[in-house]
Amino acid sequence: SDLLTIGGKTFRSRLMLGTGKYRSAEEMNAALEASGCEIVTVALRRIDLDQPKRSILDEIDWTKYHILPNTAGARTADEAVRTARLARAMGLSDWIKVEVIPDAKYLLPDPIGTFEACKVLVEEGFVVLPYINADPVLALRLQEIGTATVMPLASPIGSGQGMKTVEQIRIIIDQATVPVVVDAGIGTASEAAQAMELGASSCLINTAIARAGDPARMARAMRLGVDAGRDAYLAGRMPTLPYASASSPLEGIVR
Amino acid sequence: SDLLTIGGKTFRSRLMLGTGKYRSAEEMNAALEASGCEIVTVALRRIDLDQPKRSILDEIDWTKYHILPNTAGARTADEAVRTARLARAMGLSDWIKVEVIPDAKYLLPDPIGTFEACKVLVEEGFVVLPYINADPVLALRLQEIGTATVMPLASPIGSGQGMKTVEQIRIIIDQATVPVVVDAGIGTASEAAQAMELGASSCLINTAIARAGDPARMARAMRLGVDAGRDAYLAGRMPTLPYASASSPLEGIVR
Amino acid sequence: SDLLTIGGKTFRSRLMLGTGKYRSAEEMNAALEASGCEIVTVALRRIDLDQPKRSILDEIDWTKYHILPNTAGARTADEAVRTARLARAMGLSDWIKVEVIPDAKYLLPDPIGTFEACKVLVEEGFVVLPYINADPVLALRLQEIGTATVMPLASPIGSGQGMKTVEQIRIIIDQATVPVVVDAGIGTASEAAQAMELGASSCLINTAIARAGDPARMARAMRLGVDAGRDAYLAGRMPTLPYASASSPLEGIVR
Amino acid sequence: SDLLTIGGKTFRSRLMLGTGKYRSAEEMNAALEASGCEIVTVALRRIDLDQPKRSILDEIDWTKYHILPNTAGARTADEAVRTARLARAMGLSDWIKVEVIPDAKYLLPDPIGTFEACKVLVEEGFVVLPYINADPVLALRLQEIGTATVMPLASPIGSGQGMKTVEQIRIIIDQATVPVVVDAGIGTASEAAQAMELGASSCLINTAIARAGDPARMARAMRLGVDAGRDAYLAGRMPTLPYASASSPLEGIVR
Repeated sequence: SDLLTIGGKTFRSRLMLGTGKYRSAEEMNAALEASGCEIVTVALRRIDLDQPKRSILDEIDWTKYHILPNTAGARTADEAVRTARLARAMGLSDWIKVEVIPDAKYLLPDPIGTFEACKVLVEEGFVVLPYINADPVLALRLQEIGTATVMPLASPIGSGQGMKTVEQIRIIIDQATVPVVVDAGIGTASEAAQAMELGASSCLINTAIARAGDPARMARAMRLGVDAGRDAYLAGRMPTLPYASASSPLEGIVR
Repeated sequence: SDLLTIGGKTFRSRLMLGTGKYRSAEEMNAALEASGCEIVTVALRRIDLDQPKRSILDEIDWTKYHILPNTAGARTADEAVRTARLARAMGLSDWIKVEVIPDAKYLLPDPIGTFEACKVLVEEGFVVLPYINADPVLALRLQEIGTATVMPLASPIGSGQGMKTVEQIRIIIDQATVPVVVDAGIGTASEAAQAMELGASSCLINTAIARAGDPARMARAMRLGVDAGRDAYLAGRMPTLPYASASSPLEGIVR
Repeated sequence: SDLLTIGGKTFRSRLMLGTGKYRSAEEMNAALEASGCEIVTVALRRIDLDQPKRSILDEIDWTKYHILPNTAGARTADEAVRTARLARAMGLSDWIKVEVIPDAKYLLPDPIGTFEACKVLVEEGFVVLPYINADPVLALRLQEIGTATVMPLASPIGSGQGMKTVEQIRIIIDQATVPVVVDAGIGTASEAAQAMELGASSCLINTAIARAGDPARMARAMRLGVDAGRDAYLAGRMPTLPYASASSPLEGIVR
Repeated sequence: SDLLTIGGKTFRSRLMLGTGKYRSAEEMNAALEASGCEIVTVALRRIDLDQPKRSILDEIDWTKYHILPNTAGARTADEAVRTARLARAMGLSDWIKVEVIPDAKYLLPDPIGTFEACKVLVEEGFVVLPYINADPVLALRLQEIGTATVMPLASPIGSGQGMKTVEQIRIIIDQATVPVVVDAGIGTASEAAQAMELGASSCLINTAIARAGDPARMARAMRLGVDAGRDAYLAGRMPTLPYASASSPLEGIVR
């Protein structure tokens, strides 16, 4: 009953997975299964369009997962727009995760290019999920033009540094009218739980699972972490106190 | 198969619960059940020894939980020792959680008094679980004299401030030959997960569950958080990187 | 000899002050003096253009300070551009601190509007100092179009939350070709020192001084903090070690 | 007029320096001078007692500094007590910095052994400055038996990890009746400032200066940092706000 709704579709799982960096297709599929995820993102550039050889599309049972093509590799708004159109033309999906990333060292998204690409794609009828830095005003402006989510980063892609943008994500959530998906930087399960406790609607995780010692076990840890954080958020946490507070009354001690 | 062993007994759950501060016995029992815990701690001073009226001992189905009496309220080693002896004489248990807390504002444990009480109680054959500040040398000395665990605090009792002693707990775990139970200060599920990811063997939680908006749901969140953290620890997390690292190869983009 | 150069001018002090929120003109002037600052920012909207009554411009001895008009209150690029032109037309300065802030609750800057305003103002020959969220790609794009600095925030204006954007500011500095001025959110002297230790060129501080118990003393604290951080940065700090390292050789003890 | 008083002596400087790890006596003396310190600690084991060759005692102009012998290298209370007695017998000082450190990896102090040594030495009339983990109850017990200060660590000796024990040090200061000297772990100037802003009376620093690229410059940075933090503490910092707060009134904008 606690469902996630994006672009008119509903999902039971609040954990989305990426498909890069796995050591094998078997390991990837074991992780997808253990994670309980329903949405899986795929970089369009990893799909070889002209050749008959096996691509990422053939490795995954798409009857079980909702595909979310992404524009990874696009450095400008134009490149992102063209990638999205191609994904739709191929019949993959009219959902698109917009990534506009000009720089290869930090892989941080360009707010100007991302905003431009989203404007075009929303007008063309795409369900647009933009990957952004944790900038609350950018998030506001994107939801105002009609994106289906906002996807702020926790820390740089693939860094595993965890929740380095807590205060900004807190503000984004406070102002959100669309689901907030924390995307990039989560390195371990407690960080996924922390994102959900802030009130995020979902987490998208790739490297932390693919590069764990045991990806399937880490995928399960992430599923548990997301569920733990969501439950804690809905349960309503105790107030944080500056001092201690005895667990039981102080009278009655044996002296 | 991933069992916790303390004092010769084995447990499947790595979450221990306290029994103070619940709004009702029903709420407490619902939380105990939702948590999946097997060890429950009770302050001996909350047991009315002379009177027939209903005490905390009557509220809980002790066929389902292992009782861990504690010396909450003891301000000196002597008081703690006397409380432990009384608990054993009553037939409650020869396990004892040692708390020696001289001060009511911060409720922090006394290292000198705790060490003295533990020395006496270990010699008298108790299974001793000392509650301590996150002091690695104190933890070393306690395990050397034969305590069954060490129980360092995350932050002051009942404060919900979370993991404020991460670096010290990391050292305690690195040096431990007995289970390390993080006790006091955990406020929400991600913090329980974080404790387990550091390599703690268990968490003991009271106020964060009892004072949550919905205690049973928070108890479930804590169970999931402990399991998530344990799985993440065993899976082996990705290395944390100072920079970003692309989730998929950078060639092949649509330009 | 360790000078700060902005827009062709050089400064000895690396601390800039704002002029809002002081309890009196005397208190403000005492703080300006104690801070040793050379650049002082003034909101153009606080200057009453038509009336003869005393404004902020009359309160400060402008022979001692370089004035930096700002566009505080502008919610759009257009409003910011008009404010800058007005400041120049009045003969105040062709320097302009660009603030485009659509929202009154968090007072965070709009990346899209800020970028647009800066493009126009750089082309019109202004020396442009944009106030931005700590977004490394936005900072890159602004310096590429010719802004004289970038001014990322540490945390929301007037919040005193300190350095909440450390990792992003670290990246901004790593990529910078213009001075990086940490602006907004610094609450106390150690935070100014921390900004400088990251390699920032300067700090701009207002509320933390104006709202301190003793503004002049806090102004001096900030001056010392900026100098301390700059010296530490230039001295080159020791490496951070995961373990301890004895201060002196371990042989020779009295046993 | 803002003087530090320890054991009946008053000092203007709130920065104490150690003497280990310098690359040369010249570098050490330049750092001592630049730091403005008045109290300098020396490990007694570094003083060769029987031989005529030059020791650390000959390198420093003791007419300018107050010597504080320490018991570095002592692993037990007995060894610390013997070292203190020897220092007094040599005519060095009846001040003693008590370090009881059983372990060479983390170099953390033993609370039990430290307490025992201090009890003996206070009774023998020494001015006792104990180095301790940041344990508030241990600090309380030590000041109760008559130590002249308490010296909690920020993080492990020589690690440069900075203020990892903030919350515990805050409590120690809240309860202190003697000067609190933050000792060990400070890695850079902002961290010294932060310690002073918490209300510490003084900082003792060694490795962060001795192992800086330019020790004399870092010594100056530390002096400035300590002064900045002390001024900020005395000035009274602004409250930290969860939201933003405009630096100037919001009316009057050019629209």
